[in-house]
Amino acid sequence: MEPEPDLRQVPEWSVTEMKARAASAQEIAASVRGQAERARAAARLLARAGSAEKNRALEGMAKALEARTADILAANRRDLERHGISLSEAARDRLRLEDKGVRAMAAALREVAVLPDPVGEVTRMWRRPNGLEVGRVRIPLGVIAMIYESRPDVTAGAAGLCLKSGNAVLLRGGSEAFESNRAIAGCLQEALRASGLPEAAVQTLERGEREAVDALLKLEGLVDVVIPRGGENLIRSVLEKSRIPVLRHAKGVCHVYVDDTADLDMAESICMNAKVQRPGVCNAMETMLVDRAIAPRFLPRMLRRFAEAGVELRGCEETRKYLGTAKPATEEDWGAEYLDKILAVRVVGGLEAAIEHIARYGSAHTEAIVTRDHARARRFLREVDSSVVLVNASTRFNDGGQLGLGAEIGISTSKIHAFGPMGLEELTTTKFIVYGNGQVRE
Amino acid sequence: MEPEPDLRQVPEWSVTEMKARAASAQEIAASVRGQAERARAAARLLARAGSAEKNRALEGMAKALEARTADILAANRRDLERHGISLSEAARDRLRLEDKGVRAMAAALREVAVLPDPVGEVTRMWRRPNGLEVGRVRIPLGVIAMIYESRPDVTAGAAGLCLKSGNAVLLRGGSEAFESNRAIAGCLQEALRASGLPEAAVQTLERGEREAVDALLKLEGLVDVVIPRGGENLIRSVLEKSRIPVLRHAKGVCHVYVDDTADLDMAESICMNAKVQRPGVCNAMETMLVDRAIAPRFLPRMLRRFAEAGVELRGCEETRKYLGTAKPATEEDWGAEYLDKILAVRVVGGLEAAIEHIARYGSAHTEAIVTRDHARARRFLREVDSSVVLVNASTRFNDGGQLGLGAEIGISTSKIHAFGPMGLEELTTTKFIVYGNGQVRE
Repeated sequence: MEPEPDLRQVPEWSVTEMKARAASAQEIAASVRGQAERARAAARLLARAGSAEKNRALEGMAKALEARTADILAANRRDLERHGISLSEAARDRLRLEDKGVRAMAAALREVAVLPDPVGEVTRMWRRPNGLEVGRVRIPLGVIAMIYESRPDVTAGAAGLCLKSGNAVLLRGGSEAFESNRAIAGCLQEALRASGLPEAAVQTLERGEREAVDALLKLEGLVDVVIPRGGENLIRSVLEKSRIPVLRHAKGVCHVYVDDTADLDMAESICMNAKVQRPGVCNAMETMLVDRAIAPRFLPRMLRRFAEAGVELRGCEETRKYLGTAKPATEEDWGAEYLDKILAVRVVGGLEAAIEHIARYGSAHTEAIVTRDHARARRFLREVDSSVVLVNASTRFNDGGQLGLGAEIGISTSKIHAFGPMGLEELTTTKFIVYGNGQVRE
Repeated sequence: MEPEPDLRQVPEWSVTEMKARAASAQEIAASVRGQAERARAAARLLARAGSAEKNRALEGMAKALEARTADILAANRRDLERHGISLSEAARDRLRLEDKGVRAMAAALREVAVLPDPVGEVTRMWRRPNGLEVGRVRIPLGVIAMIYESRPDVTAGAAGLCLKSGNAVLLRGGSEAFESNRAIAGCLQEALRASGLPEAAVQTLERGEREAVDALLKLEGLVDVVIPRGGENLIRSVLEKSRIPVLRHAKGVCHVYVDDTADLDMAESICMNAKVQRPGVCNAMETMLVDRAIAPRFLPRMLRRFAEAGVELRGCEETRKYLGTAKPATEEDWGAEYLDKILAVRVVGGLEAAIEHIARYGSAHTEAIVTRDHARARRFLREVDSSVVLVNASTRFNDGGQLGLGAEIGISTSKIHAFGPMGLEELTTTKFIVYGNGQVRE
């Protein structure tokens, strides 16, 4: 609870207002704390729940979403009516739900149900010289706070992953999706109740004010980890305010390096896919690096193809020799996350220069090399310090589903706790268990 | 870099002083940033260093410490002369170094040299339906900042573990150990130079001011993780100021629960060991819980033995029936970390009540059960949410060396990244590597 503000410090006229505001801030903090306490209690029960029980709840959630599709879509229309005008077209698209969106949420929950349950796995066990048997066993993290922006499907997706990994979750979506998220969470809670699991395992924050998030981020001891998902501003703000560990996802400035031994058809297909298939996502290529020795053969065809696909090109001086219409790249272009059909292109003096460029301007997200040279492939894999490093494949594969983790709750670009896509396993930790027969320490 | 203070906001007379202070704060920040940048560059080289190279450096460090023992002890005497008077006896003991202390540091470095190198281990590899081969490979965290108090042996120990796991380290020990730490770090750097590894891989902060730590804790992007080691105040202050992920070690309020099926001799030996063998450390027992059904047979002999050993007892009402000289325990005693020969004792109604007590008052550090009942042992292991949970063994085994991790750099009581003792493996993370032959995403 926040201390009362010191009323002697403010001029007389604003005391009433300050009292009102302070009371309301306290109310908000109390409401958030209450929810977190209920989440904590739910997490203890959930940690002991069996896989079959959790899977039944996931199936129940999927069914409830399907059965109440009309209510969810009606809530979504209310959100769109209230906030649609103030949103960009892209944001409105992310907010809008249709029949097939609800069906996709239900399908995603069923997919999580068939994934293996990470909780209880003994990852290793060994015996000590004094006879102690020591093991490490996977346990849930506890209470997870998810703070995200527009897309209401995150509500169901995150809840499903948290439930399967035995965690309670506090969800705080964008205010523009308030009604949609509440309707979805209502379905999920209904299914929890029906399957005998604690309803408080999935909660949306009851208070929509910004102060509610601030209060949430102070609840160390009740909340174990915060996962922000959204734009740079959201993530920065959470990082600055949180006293709770944050699993952060910074920007994705992804590179493809085309080596002079590359199969040029393969390089072209990988670079096109990495840039054009879905330019607005974090694992899309933002800078293409090309070895000088191959540039005369590769760049003319590649740049023409990008130009035909409507990609705006920003090249170094050497690149622009091959396509005069390319804009000159500035220092800001190296390191830019366009999330758009824009590409920075640079000719480099070989593998070493490519690795240096990535170390200097990259964001440790995803980098790929296209090469036929075994030693260079190995060196790139070893020396590039990114969460996913690929040889002869598109950067677009940095995704939990694509890499075989099942589903993902986000991609971590910090090395703490998890680095890269985070699936069910990354929502757990391990504790040590020790079996003895009376051992004491000498 | 901090922005210049807004000089219009302060009265005229202090402008000069503020300018001077701001300049100095900037100087300190620049010095710390320079060290962190050198550490970052060193970390990149270290990540690629082979095990043999790192082990040679560790052996060189051990030899340098032995060869320059006299210099280190002289530096330590200067620290003691300068700060000894203002320190408690315990703190002076922690600061004081003797011949055998330096020999122990050298021996610890040699022990780290023989531990397996975690870097480069492929922890798993699998094939996707599209032919991609996906693996997870261990890599160093990068740059680690260690912030600790008096004991100068932490300087060598932490540096050894960080080096072996391929990390650069910035060390900031207590100001009272400044000269000792500098002398030790000098030996370590000499050995790095001699073995061709970057000297900047091990650095003590050049600036001793408190502002140096504040500046360090803002260097996200240069420093990957902060590990504070010391009292509650140090850790709280680091947690509040840091924008960098912190591997935190909160207090250890450890419990032993004596079940009514316990072998009473074993219970007595485990409880004595857990409380008395070394009361000042985080894995010592602070509260003993005893099942009501066994209390009449167990408590009289156990409490007498504790009293004989000079342990101050603070019991619940029921406990005090068995030893009238025990003080009554207050609500503050449950949850207290005494770090001393003091013990809280409570009679409980069985396993369920013991688990509830631990969930409410414990610190998720270390708990043990003494029992002969298989089902209860399993339930305690499963339901107690602590970093180390033991059956029929002393809490004092929560220690990286004792559990077989080799050496430890600390014990994490947060579930993020690591939970429990942190050895070499916990100073690494994994990245994904992907081998393809032209795969793109549909």
